[in-house]
Amino acid sequence: MKTVIVIGANGAIGQAALSGLRQHRIVRANRSGQDAEHQVDISDAASLERLFERVGHFDAVVNAAGFCEYAPFLDMSEAQWRATLDSKLLGQMNVVRVGARHIADGGSFTLISGILSSKPLPMAIADATASGAIETFVKCVAFELPRGIRVNVINPTVLEESWAAYGPMMPGFQPVPGALVGKAFQRSVDGFITGQVLTVDA
Amino acid sequence: MKTVIVIGANGAIGQAALSGLRQHRIVRANRSGQDAEHQVDISDAASLERLFERVGHFDAVVNAAGFCEYAPFLDMSEAQWRATLDSKLLGQMNVVRVGARHIADGGSFTLISGILSSKPLPMAIADATASGAIETFVKCVAFELPRGIRVNVINPTVLEESWAAYGPMMPGFQPVPGALVGKAFQRSVDGFITGQVLTVDA
Repeated sequence: MKTVIVIGANGAIGQAALSGLRQHRIVRANRSGQDAEHQVDISDAASLERLFERVGHFDAVVNAAGFCEYAPFLDMSEAQWRATLDSKLLGQMNVVRVGARHIADGGSFTLISGILSSKPLPMAIADATASGAIETFVKCVAFELPRGIRVNVINPTVLEESWAAYGPMMPGFQPVPGALVGKAFQRSVDGFITGQVLTVDA
Repeated sequence: MKTVIVIGANGAIGQAALSGLRQHRIVRANRSGQDAEHQVDISDAASLERLFERVGHFDAVVNAAGFCEYAPFLDMSEAQWRATLDSKLLGQMNVVRVGARHIADGGSFTLISGILSSKPLPMAIADATASGAIETFVKCVAFELPRGIRVNVINPTVLEESWAAYGPMMPGFQPVPGALVGKAFQRSVDGFITGQVLTVDA
């Protein structure tokens, strides 16, 4: 049994992640601090530092949090780009950068991207770009991590559980069950792979 | 003959780009304003706006500029990440976003990434991540551009012309002639392709 910090456990992807991590001790953290043991803002390195210090020993961090702005490219302001990159790219990078000083030997980080980097949709250019960035980051940074620390990223398509909300904006997409996405999180946390993009699509 | 704005023409990649664009009218711009008709800072949208207004009619923009910080991942500060993303990612995004309001119908943007996103090296995590981001950006944003405007990105390996400086840090890499990279710029500017990553590697 590992101690796994799950950031953003209350969201749909976080719930999917939890479904694959039932055999572990879960420590929940999210931005509001509600329905979680800890409050954390991944875009704030000091907030992450406090989280990892308070938790103490942990073997894995799963991040299912990441804010994105959605707008047509030509209408999207630089502020909207920055808000997206601060959270989904720099925030996730911070999870690894700060967490690597605290995580147990052989520990793992599992980050989140999204299918829109390979299946583009209107309004989603910042989401797609941040996803592409974090995937390249994971592929390259894996070689730098010390002490057997691993890092992977899950790239899920839309979940069945979210289809009622997002389906109308995603013509021709096939949702997958959250439990299948949970398997990818499990494969990252319990496996030996590193530097991998685990795409879960139908 | 097209009017092509080349940003960063004085660098090695800029010189390579020029070698493929000899049949066109070239308007040079760079950060110092030296050896160029115009001064521009791609990380500053207002600076780009002024450039495009002063040039007036143009058919293509080639960007060969982009600043990166190099450090081991665990030593790299958030400020170093931001400096890299502000230039190589947001700066290049700005070239398209601001330029799209000024460029001629059927015009093209050609951006720059780099081989380290697919062939990782120590110290280069921010460069690699920004390159991966801009490649995904180009693949996805191509579908959104109006008036037949195209966008591509050149991903060159190290140039023969830069090998004396970078070769010692790039064991097992094979440099290519700048003139070959120039062909990729020509294929982007004079072709009909869009949303493409033009990798130039040996």
